[in-house]
Amino acid sequence: MLFGALEAGGTKMVMAVGDEKGNILEQKSLPTLTPEETVPELLSYFSKKEICALGIGAFGPVDVNPQSKSFGHILDTPKLAWKNYNLYGAFQEKLGIPIGFDTDVNSSCLGEITFGQAGNLNSVVYLTIGTGIGAGIYVNGKLLHGMLHPEGGHIMITRHPEDSFEGCCPYHGGCLEGMAAGPAIEKRWGKRAAELEQESAVWELEAYYIAQALTNYILILSPEKIILGGGVMHQKQLFPLIREQVKKMLNGYINTKEISSLDQYIVPASLKDNQGILGCLQLAKLEYEQQVKYVQ
Amino acid sequence: MLFGALEAGGTKMVMAVGDEKGNILEQKSLPTLTPEETVPELLSYFSKKEICALGIGAFGPVDVNPQSKSFGHILDTPKLAWKNYNLYGAFQEKLGIPIGFDTDVNSSCLGEITFGQAGNLNSVVYLTIGTGIGAGIYVNGKLLHGMLHPEGGHIMITRHPEDSFEGCCPYHGGCLEGMAAGPAIEKRWGKRAAELEQESAVWELEAYYIAQALTNYILILSPEKIILGGGVMHQKQLFPLIREQVKKMLNGYINTKEISSLDQYIVPASLKDNQGILGCLQLAKLEYEQQVKYVQ
Repeated sequence: MLFGALEAGGTKMVMAVGDEKGNILEQKSLPTLTPEETVPELLSYFSKKEICALGIGAFGPVDVNPQSKSFGHILDTPKLAWKNYNLYGAFQEKLGIPIGFDTDVNSSCLGEITFGQAGNLNSVVYLTIGTGIGAGIYVNGKLLHGMLHPEGGHIMITRHPEDSFEGCCPYHGGCLEGMAAGPAIEKRWGKRAAELEQESAVWELEAYYIAQALTNYILILSPEKIILGGGVMHQKQLFPLIREQVKKMLNGYINTKEISSLDQYIVPASLKDNQGILGCLQLAKLEYEQQVKYVQ
Repeated sequence: MLFGALEAGGTKMVMAVGDEKGNILEQKSLPTLTPEETVPELLSYFSKKEICALGIGAFGPVDVNPQSKSFGHILDTPKLAWKNYNLYGAFQEKLGIPIGFDTDVNSSCLGEITFGQAGNLNSVVYLTIGTGIGAGIYVNGKLLHGMLHPEGGHIMITRHPEDSFEGCCPYHGGCLEGMAAGPAIEKRWGKRAAELEQESAVWELEAYYIAQALTNYILILSPEKIILGGGVMHQKQLFPLIREQVKKMLNGYINTKEISSLDQYIVPASLKDNQGILGCLQLAKLEYEQQVKYVQ
């Protein structure tokens, strides 16, 4: 049984066709331009495929509430051409197959749970740190939705006393994304993250901010695993630094087997940057199963 | 049908008998001494009642995972007499009826959802601010459990630039509880919260810290409602101050109908400080129904 997967990112669109076991049979990508330019190409791609359902993981904020009138619409985004665009509706109308829909980061979280290292867990945080920071959250056996969806990349953190960088989030200045995403690193240090690999001060500071966020996720959500993906997390030297800071910040308050083995608790993404597209495949499968069950 | 309810707090034990509609027929309380002194009195009380099940909401940290060997035990608590005490087991052994078990704050959250103002919602945060700070969280239609349970009272926050108080959490110094619980207010200002009612600087600062926590809960959990209870929140002047700060901190980033009506989104507990014991009643009912269903 074949499913379609669309990882609709703010920079690029990744399309794939795969099966229910997570085998990706073909995959291609396009730059994200305007809906008028980009969506017809996506529709043309998927309408030629023999797929039973499509899964879409979209950049946000998006409406993920199926009861809502604006379900599947991109909401208030700085990418103005996409603001209020009915992404779900465009595919629904043209393809007429079941369409699973969630955020890109929730999809990545689902990818890791279904095909990666977080199988059988009941609560997982997936954090991507790249050009932006986003959190996908799985709790009580489901992706987390509420009045909207997690926006955990924008949580408030405390500036390091020796860091004078004011932060670059257009909404919050020094929130997590404003202090620790790729553009913040580049702006603070004057070079791209990849060129700063040998500069230990860069990664000490980066770990300090990421660890604050993880500490708060742990205290609020009590996840069974935290998975870190995205371009910045390709800097593997960050992992031990983050774990050390989290340990210091929790300061013995949480005593669980997970916290006593932080190297298995705070881990890199395991699916070679395919966690997002694989999660979309699973979104397609889940929606297909639900609609079939409903019909029977 | 009658159910028993036990709100097992660190300071006092509240016992009640009620029905499935949330009518409390009788209620009494005892100070929390040692397990040897207190538990026999509790057992004696409930064993004389014609109850079908008991619900326990316990001070934490507690093990709330039914698959775990230490399910129902109090874990690492500064109340040393209770450390590793099998609270669930003591009642299970003596009463032989279904026993629902969760944290005290999760129970309060459930009380508000079942009998209060959060009915029909899918995701709710209940925060109690009193001698300590604790968060009960309901997500995807269930109380939140993970590797443990929420410990949202201990999240990291940023000290106000004009506040020199170092915080009084024995683990984290200036975490939310260390900066904003009742003892922190008393230690910082030299008077009990209730005596400071007219001092606007006290409540401006208090609102600043609480709002930071709520902003992070909103960005991580995206709850549909936030309910604030506990002794400190009897200071009603806090509510408008907290809402104003949350609005400022989110700074237009989240646009939902909830955030545009903060006076209906961030609200006081609605059950006259009975949210905890009513939640325990519901824990009893849910456990009873589950065991009956399992037997059938």
